[in-house]
Amino acid sequence: MTDPIDRETLGREFLADFEAMSRIGATGDGGVDRQAATAEDGRVREWLSEWLEHNGFTVRVDGIGNLFGTYEFRPGAPFVVAGSHLDSQPYAGRFDGAYGVLAAAFAAREAVRRAAADGVVPEYNIAVVDWFNEEGSRFKPSMMGSAVFTGLLDRDVALRTPDPLGVTVQEALTAIGGLGTDIDIAVDSYSEIHVEQGKALETSGVPIGVVESTWSAYKYTIRVHGEQGHTGSTLMPDRRDALLGAAHLVVAVNDLVDQFDEAELHTSVGELTVIPNSPVVIARQVDMLVDLRARESSTLDRALELLTAAVREIESRTRTRVEFVGSSVWSSGPFDRDGMALAEEVAHGLGFGTQRVLTLAGHDATNMKTHVPVVLLFVPSVGGVSHNVNEFTEDDDLVAGVEVFRELIWRRLTGAASGRDER
Amino acid sequence: MTDPIDRETLGREFLADFEAMSRIGATGDGGVDRQAATAEDGRVREWLSEWLEHNGFTVRVDGIGNLFGTYEFRPGAPFVVAGSHLDSQPYAGRFDGAYGVLAAAFAAREAVRRAAADGVVPEYNIAVVDWFNEEGSRFKPSMMGSAVFTGLLDRDVALRTPDPLGVTVQEALTAIGGLGTDIDIAVDSYSEIHVEQGKALETSGVPIGVVESTWSAYKYTIRVHGEQGHTGSTLMPDRRDALLGAAHLVVAVNDLVDQFDEAELHTSVGELTVIPNSPVVIARQVDMLVDLRARESSTLDRALELLTAAVREIESRTRTRVEFVGSSVWSSGPFDRDGMALAEEVAHGLGFGTQRVLTLAGHDATNMKTHVPVVLLFVPSVGGVSHNVNEFTEDDDLVAGVEVFRELIWRRLTGAASGRDER
Repeated sequence: MTDPIDRETLGREFLADFEAMSRIGATGDGGVDRQAATAEDGRVREWLSEWLEHNGFTVRVDGIGNLFGTYEFRPGAPFVVAGSHLDSQPYAGRFDGAYGVLAAAFAAREAVRRAAADGVVPEYNIAVVDWFNEEGSRFKPSMMGSAVFTGLLDRDVALRTPDPLGVTVQEALTAIGGLGTDIDIAVDSYSEIHVEQGKALETSGVPIGVVESTWSAYKYTIRVHGEQGHTGSTLMPDRRDALLGAAHLVVAVNDLVDQFDEAELHTSVGELTVIPNSPVVIARQVDMLVDLRARESSTLDRALELLTAAVREIESRTRTRVEFVGSSVWSSGPFDRDGMALAEEVAHGLGFGTQRVLTLAGHDATNMKTHVPVVLLFVPSVGGVSHNVNEFTEDDDLVAGVEVFRELIWRRLTGAASGRDER
Repeated sequence: MTDPIDRETLGREFLADFEAMSRIGATGDGGVDRQAATAEDGRVREWLSEWLEHNGFTVRVDGIGNLFGTYEFRPGAPFVVAGSHLDSQPYAGRFDGAYGVLAAAFAAREAVRRAAADGVVPEYNIAVVDWFNEEGSRFKPSMMGSAVFTGLLDRDVALRTPDPLGVTVQEALTAIGGLGTDIDIAVDSYSEIHVEQGKALETSGVPIGVVESTWSAYKYTIRVHGEQGHTGSTLMPDRRDALLGAAHLVVAVNDLVDQFDEAELHTSVGELTVIPNSPVVIARQVDMLVDLRARESSTLDRALELLTAAVREIESRTRTRVEFVGSSVWSSGPFDRDGMALAEEVAHGLGFGTQRVLTLAGHDATNMKTHVPVVLLFVPSVGGVSHNVNEFTEDDDLVAGVEVFRELIWRRLTGAASGRDER
């Protein structure tokens, strides 16, 4: 039985390829801008396709633009799937998602080499995946590709979704040659590795985070209705200014957290659109996305009650009407216990410490978790900076994650898991 | 000496043409959407050009897209200029600007007919004008065409101004065939009639408002600097959320008026742009336009002091940085006294009551006022509704305004003004 390639070679190759990949859609200051189904997303997908084909994988794209690289050890057997996403937020970091896709590709390539070298036929086949539109900045909702794949979102609804300029997902995917037809992939398990987007690992100095649970999230699309008018000539007491109502609401959403214990509740408004948004016109409508997150749904229920009371007060104070036009709920939930145990066993076996962590951010793993056993691993992120060009993870931490992930995938493939067989 | 065409015929013809013009860029619910140099603006300009040519005027377009229809009674003599603007805010009323352009066209046409019928050669020539981009919704600043015409704004700077999609004024005007070269028009006086955009005339039941002064306005482009980050994973105390800072500022700008006497100060924020404006991203920057208006500049100076103090407090509370990146000042100022007296004499002679009013809104007349004697007249507007598809003025009020304006222009042309000759 041969060993896999040594740690140093693995690290050198991975970092070189990661650097090459990060040049696609580069912002020039360390970040990337590769929103879903833009030309830049198309180019990085093409780069990955070439990498996969060069390493013996078959590349296929499904009916919502998820890009798979598959290798069959045992035709007809289910797949061990591993991946993340290549799309980015506008003007954001180069690690978010992209790190996990390339780590999965390396883990898969190494598994193919090791199987050949050892004369082993793994129990399962392997698939690397780039999920379409995880970020949701151009097309909503986020985590679109994995939601369609797992049946949580209707494919036709997703394809008809327009971006702010009216270009649909279907049109945008077609334009980058990224739309295929449905693929039948029987999934045995899903694994993903990601930069933490938080400071827990950095604070504790532990190289590998094993995610044990997601936070709950309530997400609301809120519309403030006012009345359009001339800012110069409409007297202040006659105004029904949707932007003023929305401004009070942004403050109220932020101030909700003061009524809870420290870090018990997180709130945010990341997107706010003013209509018609003209210098001398009172806004007739403002749409905003409000996001409430907590460990426990009960915290969110209490926050929603307080928010509703604040909304009533704002309506009366600003003579506007506030409408909740849409909502989505992410339930908190634990990850697969056996998967966590396997990941810890693998990491410890390679000499890396682990720590159980939570994720406040959503991931494709959250969607896959409704479907199959999932492992989600984190590597440390300096200062927890995320969705920002200054996002950064040290090379050593990146390579440690790849090494652990490579062994995890091999154990998944060969069925030698500490846990999976007993589930 | 023949009389001009009777009141009834004038009214019927005017209302029919106004209705035809209002179909261009119609929103289907009484409003129009004809932002500057859009296809709809191009079509209404073409409609006006045909109307003017059909009635014997020479149509010329200057180097910033102002459209003139001229008729020379006395080659080489200065021009009596009358007009307003055909462009509109997005999804707005059909009267704002367009009423004044067509009223000026009718007044000019009637003057040509009357001169011919009476065998009179007026002292001045006549020009009807559609000023380019009065509204400023697509290209900033507003009142662009009249600002360039009067030398308040550099033509090249204006031509290079981009819209939100990056299309410049020069490109947009060229696309609608609306860009000419500089025209030398010696202006003797300027007259404009407009719907009130306020309720003073409706409240008093007086049909003709004679504008005696503009309010002062301070206009600021304010940029709030934050730090981009992931809303899910960045802890609340670590955030520097530009949108939260901006929301506090919108509220503070509104609340400024509470520290002044009733209606002493008007404030507004009509435009607010969030960057990058994505659902799970903390905004790194918000740009907003803040508008302070009052009768007296001293009120605005006091308001600015209070706003500056509020800004400091918001910066500290939200860990953002607030920058004043641009400003413009409209000084308050009286209109030409002799012109006001002439307009009142004309209206009273036709049996219409008049009232002196102020304008809170800006008009091309405000720019022209720096240049030549200007008369600005208002007709009543139901409820003062403005920049809204529900803007409305009764037919009788529209026609009364046209009748007064027709006689005013004739008096301007023949030099029989009560005031102008003595200025």
